[in-house]
Amino acid sequence: MSFNTFGRLLRFTTWGESHGPAIGAIVDGCPPGLALSEADIQPWLDKRRPGASRFTTQRREADQVRILSGTFEGRTTGTPISLLIDNQDQRSKDYSDVAKAYRPGHADYTYDAKYGFRDWRGGGRSSARETAARVAASAVARLIIPEVKIRAYLVELGGDPVDRNRIDLDAIDANALNCPDTAAAERWEAALDAARKAGSSLGAVVECVTDGVPAGWGAPVYAKLDSELAAAMMSINAAKGVEIGDGFAAARLRGEENADAMRAGPTFLSNHAGGILGGISSGQPVVVRVAFKPTSSILTPVPTISRDGAETEIVTKGRHDPCVGIRAVPVVEAMMALVLADQKLLHRGQCG
Amino acid sequence: MSFNTFGRLLRFTTWGESHGPAIGAIVDGCPPGLALSEADIQPWLDKRRPGASRFTTQRREADQVRILSGTFEGRTTGTPISLLIDNQDQRSKDYSDVAKAYRPGHADYTYDAKYGFRDWRGGGRSSARETAARVAASAVARLIIPEVKIRAYLVELGGDPVDRNRIDLDAIDANALNCPDTAAAERWEAALDAARKAGSSLGAVVECVTDGVPAGWGAPVYAKLDSELAAAMMSINAAKGVEIGDGFAAARLRGEENADAMRAGPTFLSNHAGGILGGISSGQPVVVRVAFKPTSSILTPVPTISRDGAETEIVTKGRHDPCVGIRAVPVVEAMMALVLADQKLLHRGQCG
Amino acid sequence: MSFNTFGRLLRFTTWGESHGPAIGAIVDGCPPGLALSEADIQPWLDKRRPGASRFTTQRREADQVRILSGTFEGRTTGTPISLLIDNQDQRSKDYSDVAKAYRPGHADYTYDAKYGFRDWRGGGRSSARETAARVAASAVARLIIPEVKIRAYLVELGGDPVDRNRIDLDAIDANALNCPDTAAAERWEAALDAARKAGSSLGAVVECVTDGVPAGWGAPVYAKLDSELAAAMMSINAAKGVEIGDGFAAARLRGEENADAMRAGPTFLSNHAGGILGGISSGQPVVVRVAFKPTSSILTPVPTISRDGAETEIVTKGRHDPCVGIRAVPVVEAMMALVLADQKLLHRGQCG
Amino acid sequence: MSFNTFGRLLRFTTWGESHGPAIGAIVDGCPPGLALSEADIQPWLDKRRPGASRFTTQRREADQVRILSGTFEGRTTGTPISLLIDNQDQRSKDYSDVAKAYRPGHADYTYDAKYGFRDWRGGGRSSARETAARVAASAVARLIIPEVKIRAYLVELGGDPVDRNRIDLDAIDANALNCPDTAAAERWEAALDAARKAGSSLGAVVECVTDGVPAGWGAPVYAKLDSELAAAMMSINAAKGVEIGDGFAAARLRGEENADAMRAGPTFLSNHAGGILGGISSGQPVVVRVAFKPTSSILTPVPTISRDGAETEIVTKGRHDPCVGIRAVPVVEAMMALVLADQKLLHRGQCG
Repeated sequence: MSFNTFGRLLRFTTWGESHGPAIGAIVDGCPPGLALSEADIQPWLDKRRPGASRFTTQRREADQVRILSGTFEGRTTGTPISLLIDNQDQRSKDYSDVAKAYRPGHADYTYDAKYGFRDWRGGGRSSARETAARVAASAVARLIIPEVKIRAYLVELGGDPVDRNRIDLDAIDANALNCPDTAAAERWEAALDAARKAGSSLGAVVECVTDGVPAGWGAPVYAKLDSELAAAMMSINAAKGVEIGDGFAAARLRGEENADAMRAGPTFLSNHAGGILGGISSGQPVVVRVAFKPTSSILTPVPTISRDGAETEIVTKGRHDPCVGIRAVPVVEAMMALVLADQKLLHRGQCG
Repeated sequence: MSFNTFGRLLRFTTWGESHGPAIGAIVDGCPPGLALSEADIQPWLDKRRPGASRFTTQRREADQVRILSGTFEGRTTGTPISLLIDNQDQRSKDYSDVAKAYRPGHADYTYDAKYGFRDWRGGGRSSARETAARVAASAVARLIIPEVKIRAYLVELGGDPVDRNRIDLDAIDANALNCPDTAAAERWEAALDAARKAGSSLGAVVECVTDGVPAGWGAPVYAKLDSELAAAMMSINAAKGVEIGDGFAAARLRGEENADAMRAGPTFLSNHAGGILGGISSGQPVVVRVAFKPTSSILTPVPTISRDGAETEIVTKGRHDPCVGIRAVPVVEAMMALVLADQKLLHRGQCG
Repeated sequence: MSFNTFGRLLRFTTWGESHGPAIGAIVDGCPPGLALSEADIQPWLDKRRPGASRFTTQRREADQVRILSGTFEGRTTGTPISLLIDNQDQRSKDYSDVAKAYRPGHADYTYDAKYGFRDWRGGGRSSARETAARVAASAVARLIIPEVKIRAYLVELGGDPVDRNRIDLDAIDANALNCPDTAAAERWEAALDAARKAGSSLGAVVECVTDGVPAGWGAPVYAKLDSELAAAMMSINAAKGVEIGDGFAAARLRGEENADAMRAGPTFLSNHAGGILGGISSGQPVVVRVAFKPTSSILTPVPTISRDGAETEIVTKGRHDPCVGIRAVPVVEAMMALVLADQKLLHRGQCG
Repeated sequence: MSFNTFGRLLRFTTWGESHGPAIGAIVDGCPPGLALSEADIQPWLDKRRPGASRFTTQRREADQVRILSGTFEGRTTGTPISLLIDNQDQRSKDYSDVAKAYRPGHADYTYDAKYGFRDWRGGGRSSARETAARVAASAVARLIIPEVKIRAYLVELGGDPVDRNRIDLDAIDANALNCPDTAAAERWEAALDAARKAGSSLGAVVECVTDGVPAGWGAPVYAKLDSELAAAMMSINAAKGVEIGDGFAAARLRGEENADAMRAGPTFLSNHAGGILGGISSGQPVVVRVAFKPTSSILTPVPTISRDGAETEIVTKGRHDPCVGIRAVPVVEAMMALVLADQKLLHRGQCG
């Protein structure tokens, strides 16, 4: 794996900056003969697209994807699939302050420290805009795993969790927040409006539940399915934590509570494990949760320093999501699809 | 990366089963000229060694490491370093029940599902014994990053957290639980004794704080330092969650609370980020926490099925840690060292 | 490494088909701060561009490269560099026969055997057009190794070798055949004209001599510099053989003839080894030769079969190079640059 | 891939020095359930073992392999297979001269240049002894490709080729030189005896013909089967050239001569391509030839320099093969098996 490539047999490489001419992804290793056109990719990009509600950045991007290679007469050929999305709404002038001082919570300082300078327009390569390329790539991955159904949603926003008894997956698309609990969605809207008006931002926790993964995907020891998922999810902008199944709560259970008893079938009487045992899928739903910090781009002034080390304050104007977790939902789904498709091919390669 | 290999420039491959003749690691890509002998590795293995107290498995292993290649006249040559540890106390008879039925929480069922059969002696490749090989490999990694100081310890056991105001790193080695809070250590000992007598087990959370990492290690986008650490930590047996800095708690902060303000130096006024911004180290301490589920091997009977699908119960006799989190501490440190050493070399390779 | 990615620290991924809308390369892992614009890349593409003489395909391609990412204010940022070249002259109608029957010597049959179908327009992914993407990528690699001077040329065409006493590197650009021996160039022109008129084609041997590689690049055992070069060169279309230094002729020498004696400096009294000992550069010129088979696309009818197995004959019309070795010269140089730049970074990563 | 690891899905990592305590290989990614014991590996090692005749080094090594992991009840488990071979006959005293001065043709100077120092005992990591680990690993690979039959032999020794009309594969094992032409074997024995008496050595060309590879293994563009084979073969000690099918001779053919015409079946009327078209196997025999330089360790004095740069002469005493090509035969076969097994798994992974 390289810096901007993810995967083993199904590999994707993304490129592009927030304010460059375009972004894109190369998907390599895809099986041949799968039906693929732009129409298979666009809906996933539309789910992630900015500007859909007042709770996401007002940047306007059509996010129209073009397939430049790897298909012939509407089917994948087995050769690399090049996906390209033009950037349209790059108002670089918004970022003039960013050129001079480091935005706390952003990668400004660390990119400078590593590379000696940086593309300061909209965060450059560290912008969440990169995730559009992943979402595009994931549409290819989904073709490989038609047996799998992936669904992600927010289970907590600004510290306010959903009521687990009220989770209704059909409710997710009925609000602008990817919230499966209608009552929580109302509370969250109010909290977000208040945070936005206050020049602040909120964090969130995304949960992803995946049905249809058969037992046997994943591998010991450093290619464990949970290890791959942890890497995949932690690579998403603003992610600060990943847990599988009960996760941190499992550390508070006793052995007999945590053990998922088995019955004939096989079936399991519970799923504390989140569908993964010893790094290999068990046939139960694969459950992952990802914690996203509050958006670092806020209107509240924060003490910082300039490139030459002078102390100053910074206010991040521009157009930003008040809670990056909301638009992270399709990205979490994308990474899940990309990891699982890769694991399916790896398993087939080794075990036939 | 392959199934049993971790790393990019500094790579290590581990091999071996719990009850085979030996286990080992190959460390490849190590810089030449570093002083290395068995005496540099053994202390780290001794920290992880079983049988040191009543709170860890009573399996007796000397865990004596031998260097079989890669050094000459006491220094690394730049060629692969082969480390071998003989297994000594393999009482396979203890595991006869395991051959017949799946232990819930273990990898028994999933290995069978993946591979069609499994080495059932002590968990085979899925045994935590594999982590001894990582600890041995990490001693080599530490030679590459002398500027870095790594310290891990338990911050929660059985749902009982340490008092953050009472954390004293000097206290860690004064108890058998890797606990930095003397008062908590006493409570935990009682809880562990009770759990053990009840045929149960407890979970734990390990925290690892690393000083001395300069700004600039790590890389966008899929080689982010936090992404690598997440993969590394989640690959440890029984790990169910990983968080960086404030982690899941960051999802409950507001933007202005979470932003680590900067002052001249540069210094930071806080470290919610855990020393990583945009996937690259910031020069602050790198902070990671890992959640470990309670030991799945318990004396309490759990419903399960046999290999041929018949319903039964299983009690896991044998010798087991009542809380795997305790002995995970040196393993978390090992993975931190291995990731950081690799990142240092990668950074030097790309950026000079 | 993946199917369409080459390299370890400096990695490039190419994509695109002969008759798709575009081709391209992503170069990842490039050091930051290097001056790079399209003007640094275009001259190398122009050297490879078709249609320059009657001895190369008459396909007309401007081969204008665009940099879509990875630079800012004219310098590399350390993030992936996306290079795109639009295809312009794709006369797919020329290839209608190819859709029906397999061209002997081409990848038609094997792609069908592997993938179940293929993009038959101009060879699709197996077209030598892919090498334009490599040449573009190599311009980035050359920035990393300014100390290295690479020069390739033909030493044999149609079985007629140059006179080694008459090799003059300044002569190479004075003819259309990349020939360093003016007398040989005249003979070759006549041979090529005759072959073209006869509906035939000729093979060639390309030699590449590289000055300025310091001692110490490369690594045992499976990353030997000669092993990497062999893989790189053999991946070029129509390549059938690779040799280092004296190559196959070394197998006919006696030990004392083949040994390159050393004198103070160090200097070497000969260079049978081609600048590589034990897989590591010795500081002498790195010398590689690559054999290219005659172009498989010929006007002479060849017996073959159709997709459904019926026996037939095929004549490959279209526009083709009568000797692919001529235009392979800049591609050999490109692969040399890409391998060496990667090795330089790898060496710096491991050995500082 | 790392420095000492080869392969993608089936990967092997070798370690060990000529005069260390042992050498070994880890084979990772092997399919589960294959019958494997030491008895499956030993015969291949015995074919390579030194000391079998007066034409190979008189070093005495039993080369007894032990399987330390990855099997259970005689079958592979899918986890890493650790193979270990103890070194027995390490007369380090023979190499005292080597510590002081560089042996021309060897890796002595380049290892020093790269790493700052080296293990000078018997060439350390650069010794051909490393190839025993590959041969051991290849026995595992062979289990994965039972449909494939690999046979290698010498076709040229000291510049004296076999008579292609006299090649008889049954003759190979009837002489000590891996020669398929009985008459040539007699001439070669005389030539070798003369060279040895003269303190000299001879080079050789090994040919490897592989039957049973189905059409469809390999992949564009940088994982071409011929590219993988070139890397694999060039990584063998003393290899200086690799060619596929007609190789360098193909560069002297005309297009219509070189094209392998197809007839129904499909069958091919010739095999100039060596069984590979566009980097993918065609179903014909895969044919590779590898050129080996004469042994660099000779009794004839050669001018060289000492570590501190002073001019001197060196005579390489010790025990050496007068022609390394002879014992390279099983190593060429090993690398062929390792590449093909990997490609089979890769193909299955991507294409099902």
